Amino acid sequence: MEILEQIAENLQKIRDQKPLIHHITNYVTVNDCANMTLAIGASPVMADDIGEVEDMVSFAAALVLNMGTLNGRTIESMLAAGKKARQMGIPVIFDPVGVGATKLRTVAAERIIHEICPTVIRGNMSEIKIIAGFQETIKGVDSVASGQDGEQIAQELSQKLAAVIAITGKQDIIAQGGRSLRIDNGHPMLSQVTGTGCMATSLIGCFCGVTEDYFTGAAAGEMMMGLDGEPAQHSLQAGDGIGTFRMRLFDAVSTITAESLLARGMVSKA
Amino acid sequence: MEILEQIAENLQKIRDQKPLIHHITNYVTVNDCANMTLAIGASPVMADDIGEVEDMVSFAAALVLNMGTLNGRTIESMLAAGKKARQMGIPVIFDPVGVGATKLRTVAAERIIHEICPTVIRGNMSEIKIIAGFQETIKGVDSVASGQDGEQIAQELSQKLAAVIAITGKQDIIAQGGRSLRIDNGHPMLSQVTGTGCMATSLIGCFCGVTEDYFTGAAAGEMMMGLDGEPAQHSLQAGDGIGTFRMRLFDAVSTITAESLLARGMVSKA
Amino acid sequence: MEILEQIAENLQKIRDQKPLIHHITNYVTVNDCANMTLAIGASPVMADDIGEVEDMVSFAAALVLNMGTLNGRTIESMLAAGKKARQMGIPVIFDPVGVGATKLRTVAAERIIHEICPTVIRGNMSEIKIIAGFQETIKGVDSVASGQDGEQIAQELSQKLAAVIAITGKQDIIAQGGRSLRIDNGHPMLSQVTGTGCMATSLIGCFCGVTEDYFTGAAAGEMMMGLDGEPAQHSLQAGDGIGTFRMRLFDAVSTITAESLLARGMVSKA
Repeated sequence: MEILEQIAENLQKIRDQKPLIHHITNYVTVNDCANMTLAIGASPVMADDIGEVEDMVSFAAALVLNMGTLNGRTIESMLAAGKKARQMGIPVIFDPVGVGATKLRTVAAERIIHEICPTVIRGNMSEIKIIAGFQETIKGVDSVASGQDGEQIAQELSQKLAAVIAITGKQDIIAQGGRSLRIDNGHPMLSQVTGTGCMATSLIGCFCGVTEDYFTGAAAGEMMMGLDGEPAQHSLQAGDGIGTFRMRLFDAVSTITAESLLARGMVSKA
Repeated sequence: MEILEQIAENLQKIRDQKPLIHHITNYVTVNDCANMTLAIGASPVMADDIGEVEDMVSFAAALVLNMGTLNGRTIESMLAAGKKARQMGIPVIFDPVGVGATKLRTVAAERIIHEICPTVIRGNMSEIKIIAGFQETIKGVDSVASGQDGEQIAQELSQKLAAVIAITGKQDIIAQGGRSLRIDNGHPMLSQVTGTGCMATSLIGCFCGVTEDYFTGAAAGEMMMGLDGEPAQHSLQAGDGIGTFRMRLFDAVSTITAESLLARGMVSKA
Repeated sequence: MEILEQIAENLQKIRDQKPLIHHITNYVTVNDCANMTLAIGASPVMADDIGEVEDMVSFAAALVLNMGTLNGRTIESMLAAGKKARQMGIPVIFDPVGVGATKLRTVAAERIIHEICPTVIRGNMSEIKIIAGFQETIKGVDSVASGQDGEQIAQELSQKLAAVIAITGKQDIIAQGGRSLRIDNGHPMLSQVTGTGCMATSLIGCFCGVTEDYFTGAAAGEMMMGLDGEPAQHSLQAGDGIGTFRMRLFDAVSTITAESLLARGMVSKA
């Protein structure tokens, strides 16, 4: 089966099964992640206390760990929830927001990768390069790295960590073992709204909650966010800006059809 | 006076008095709760540090306690604020989000109910059944229970806890002592946006901030959220989805008139 | 150069330089602050753990400290980040949300002012009066004070604290040393949406990130928020309320031109 058809099939599975996606994430974009999870048809739960994360993740179809506003308390919760998830065979999607910007983030990402072995790691090119051991210049949490050598980096890191690697950029790159894909959907306005990276990670969580083919799950989440940006931008009229665009992202995901996905998805071997 | 007329009168009181509603709530939907409190005409304050919650609640007309993302720190703040509120005669509205899903939530809910005796408890059918002592299957924070026996459960729990019980569902149920009501307003899309339960709890807080008839206050908050969903859904055009719907919820509450409430409210003896 | 022309020039600088604005802020309006920072053309980062705030602020062009939902943990982070910023010559914009409402807030504000000496302090009239030592009646976090004597208070406080003082109200007042300005832009609906004060503070941070004339930077941020409210309100149609208005605030900032700013800005000597 073609990958676009697999993604369309998994979209329908999400809407049928409503998988529970447990997030331990940041307080900046948590509402957006919850609403995006609902928009695609899944069910979000956000719980981060060390006293309950193992209980909560045991109901979940996938666990999303996002470092956006990590702190000493939530790092321990991420580790506990992640270990429990891996013991139970629940996929763990890791978003190393801002890794490399501070020692706290770099050490936390190293611990999460080393102790949990995430199923999928999604980041921008700067973040993935840092994880791959490059000496990158990091400024805050937004990417400043170029993407030309992305496929090779993703392939090598994927093999080293035994994880699916997803790099979000003008072209998204997905790599696992010997396989890799490029996705050409998306719109530059996506970078002008906070949380579009976090929402892509949540969407990957939703897809990985209904399939064990996590390579396709990661591609599906990245593609969905890109497909999302296109009609959101096209719908804008004079005077509309990022406020309207942001609202339209949720409209687009909640109304997308399999036909639209099959017609508009742009995926190619990397 | 008929209950619809009482609700319309209380709506006007909220807009005249702008009661301060102190929330200790979750970081997922806190912005929505603040904006919904403003939309109805009240004034929100969100403060959760143990060092200030007793000071803050002493200015408030009502206290909303919402367990959505509770943690060890905020549980203690909820208990301290709740006790202070009850000492001062300020109504406490309790939303036991996800009770039963984890031991942490169940123990916290038991403590809040035992030590504070909330004025109103609002939840979905699963949450209310758990509080009533049923062995419910809980998955995350969304309801999976059916509502057929809701009125009896609400009545019995209300008498046991000496609290108003409000169950949100396809039909909302409000019970206190020997009284009960059903509310038929609402739209299924409300369950596709995060925080509509939390916002209903905040609206109950707003109404309980201007009346001592907390049974009517609870009914008013539930009805307002339901009335809210109807025009929000009716206004949708081709391509609109949950993004537009969500925005329209705030439009609808901020522009509702007494006439519209009296014409559209659907309340009946349960 | 006229102040309006300076503001227009600084707007262009923000869009060209994309200054990083580090926020330690509240969980109620943090998403709005991030999106408003992006809307004007700057880059937000929200990090609050004591283990990373000094690292993070060292990349930043400005630091925003907002007390909205302060707690024992974040107060220490604010102090550490603020001291580091001042050592490095990075401007610190302080928003003393709800100062005077609780002892925790008053003590925290005193420590921040005493230990950091913020570059700009922005608040409503009640908050600024409290900081100036008046015995104000505070109810929650919204202003109840009248603004008639605002200019004198702002001038005196500015000299006492060696800071730019910005008071948001029907007329905004900006004072530094012997200078003061009034800004007449804005719309009353801005007070019906949560976070418009916080967003004004973030916008001040964005402008202070591209100029060392912090008096003009503070005026620019206040004016931008006011200019924002006008088209947002004008665009409303029948049935639109605070939901649509709120979305339009982000549209207006992301699409504003220098020409519109020069034509609509209303600034005068106070």
